[in-house]
Formats: sequence, structure tokens, C-alpha cells
Amino acid sequence: MRQAQKEITVATSGQGLYEISDAVRAFAESSGIETGLLTAYCRHTSASLVIQENADPDVQRDLVAFFKRLVPDGDPLFVHTIEGPDDMPAHVKSALTQTSIAIPIMRSVLALGTWQGLYLFEHRRSPHARKIVLHVVGS
Amino acid sequence: MRQAQKEITVATSGQGLYEISDAVRAFAESSGIETGLLTAYCRHTSASLVIQENADPDVQRDLVAFFKRLVPDGDPLFVHTIEGPDDMPAHVKSALTQTSIAIPIMRSVLALGTWQGLYLFEHRRSPHARKIVLHVVGS
Amino acid sequence: MRQAQKEITVATSGQGLYEISDAVRAFAESSGIETGLLTAYCRHTSASLVIQENADPDVQRDLVAFFKRLVPDGDPLFVHTIEGPDDMPAHVKSALTQTSIAIPIMRSVLALGTWQGLYLFEHRRSPHARKIVLHVVGS
Repeated sequence: MRQAQKEITVATSGQGLYEISDAVRAFAESSGIETGLLTAYCRHTSASLVIQENADPDVQRDLVAFFKRLVPDGDPLFVHTIEGPDDMPAHVKSALTQTSIAIPIMRSVLALGTWQGLYLFEHRRSPHARKIVLHVVGS
Repeated sequence: MRQAQKEITVATSGQGLYEISDAVRAFAESSGIETGLLTAYCRHTSASLVIQENADPDVQRDLVAFFKRLVPDGDPLFVHTIEGPDDMPAHVKSALTQTSIAIPIMRSVLALGTWQGLYLFEHRRSPHARKIVLHVVGS
Repeated sequence: MRQAQKEITVATSGQGLYEISDAVRAFAESSGIETGLLTAYCRHTSASLVIQENADPDVQRDLVAFFKRLVPDGDPLFVHTIEGPDDMPAHVKSALTQTSIAIPIMRSVLALGTWQGLYLFEHRRSPHARKIVLHVVGS
């Protein structure tokens, strides 16, 4: 049993999904682990992680549209508006999705399903550099 | 320290919760691990995982009803409707719940609380065969 | 590679966020693990876990307010009302947030981001004693 860790940075340019499957897959493969568990962890509270369909780009568009309607920017319910109308909605969207996701490694391959992609979900309008820690344990 | 993995298939017949606690518990016990961590991972983007009360079936009915109202089938907001009115809502419901859940193993027993059950949450109307990967690490 | 486990109890007094970062950090440090993965697991279906901003208390107030509006107590949609108007909404809010969260340990420090705090999210109005299992694996 052994483990490996790596922090990657994702440059974002506005609200939306940014696929990180390839970077995560490359890290998993470079670890040489055949059987194990990979965990991705997002170090922010206004961006999060989500696994979604990676085939039709409309899925990503629709997902972003749904969250925008569910948690509208500028909602008068919110008191915390220090960083603008998309500040508090970003925190809520992060709470509604995931901060950490674990994916098994089977026969040296990340067990993502055929249509699954791993995405950073950026909830802020302005550009950000998002830090994601990858951890793998196995043998 | 050692680990084990297994993929299980859950046959679903429409939207709702399908309990997998027994299958997961059996796998954890068969691993012989006394202290460790079990991770369940759903390989789909139109079905997900959720831990819910396993006592009153009305809880499952109400949970499904809530998600159906929050993300209605046929919502005109959605562009991605290739597989029908329950296609995109299934992706959204998956994003709102969990793709992976980790449960500790303590004294050879899965640490599910007294009222907790682990469920596959099927978001599609038609029957599906859902793949869930179980991974356990410990000693 | 080694591991450690601990169950902590959080006394709650109504709906809201209860920060457990310090207790979790103390457990991670006491394990002596320099590189690894910490998992927190909530053993309930009417309370959950969430990572949120720990700087401005208004974030927590707004988050609670959003979930209260999204899943109102006493919603006539719900059949399961055995324990009162906040019973079923508590289960739904738990499903919408997280039951388990994994956080890497890097250079002996929990990889929480600068503004991240780990919280127990209590969804019931009456006081409860909530059990959270902490598990760490690494070296």
C-alpha cells in the first residue's frame, strides 16, 4: 500500500464547468497504483466539484442554467454581498454540490463511467485560479 | 493495511430509491477488515447515491416527490432532451445528491447510524442496470 | 501506512451550522500522519456536513436562510410528519448536502483552504447530540 498527492490549479473565466478528467487521470496513472482510491478535493467555498455527462455540451449549459435559476445572483434574501451579487449564490451552489469526490482505481484505470467526466464547477463571474488537491491510496 | 474492490449491479425499474445497505454491508464483512473506510461510487450521471432514513417508507416517497417538484421532468429551461423529458432532470438530480459516499468501518461493522440506509437514487423512468463500485481499505 | 478513528459528539441547539474544524484538525494532528486522507462521516439523516466560508458569519446565516426557503418546514408536499414540521425537510436538506467529506492531509496539515471551515449542519429545531466518525489513513 502506498499513496501520492498533487495539487493542481484550474484557471477559470466565469461561471461554468471546467473538465479536469484528463489531469486527474494522468495523475492516477503516474502513481502506478493498480487498485486503489483517488480523492479530489476543492479548496474553495465558491467553486465545487461535480461529475456530469461529458458527451453533449448542452448538459453542462443546462446544469449551469438550472443552478442560476435555483440560486439567482442578486437574490434579496442574502445579507452577505461583500464581493457582489454572485458572492453568496456561489457559496450556496458549492453547498448544493460537492467539495470532495472519491473515485476508485480498478486495473490501473480510474473507474469513471463511460459518460462521466469530473468537473470543477466555478460559481463566480470573475476569473479565478482554483486549487484542487488530488490524493491516491492503493497498491 | 489491505484493500478490496467489487462492482455490484442494481436493476432499477423507474424513479426512486433502491436500498443497497445489505449488499454493501456483506461486502464490507467479507473483506475481513476491522477498522477502515468503505467507499461506494456510482458510475452514472443520471443516478446517484444518498443516505436516508430506512424506517418509514414515506421518507423515500417524500424525498422523491421533493426532487420531482424541484427539478420537474419536461422543464422548458432544458435544451438537452435527447432521451426524453426525464433526461436532463436526471443529470441535475445527480449533481444535487452524491456520486461517492465514504462510510467508516468500526469494530468490523459499517458505521451507518441506527436509522441510516444507503440508497441508489434512480432518476430515470425506464429500467436500468446501474453499476456501483465498492472499495474498502483498512486492516 | 496506518490509520486512526474517533467518534466525536456535537451538541446542537436548533437549526444552523456548527463548526467542527478545530476538533477535526486536532484529531488529524494527534494521529501524527504527515500525508494522508481524513474522512468525516455524519451518522444521521436529519443533520449533515458542509464546507463553508468561516470568515463572515452572514454566510452561515444566508446559507441556513436559503435552505429554509428551498425546503420550508411544514411543506404540505410531505406525508412523513411524525416528528413535526421540520422532520421531512431535515431529511431533504441532508440529501442536498453531504453525509461524508474527505479532506487530504498535506505536510501534517489538513488541506482546508484559507476560508474553508467544516461544519455540522443541524436541520432539526430541537437540541440533538450528533455523532460524527473521523477516519484518517496515511503515513
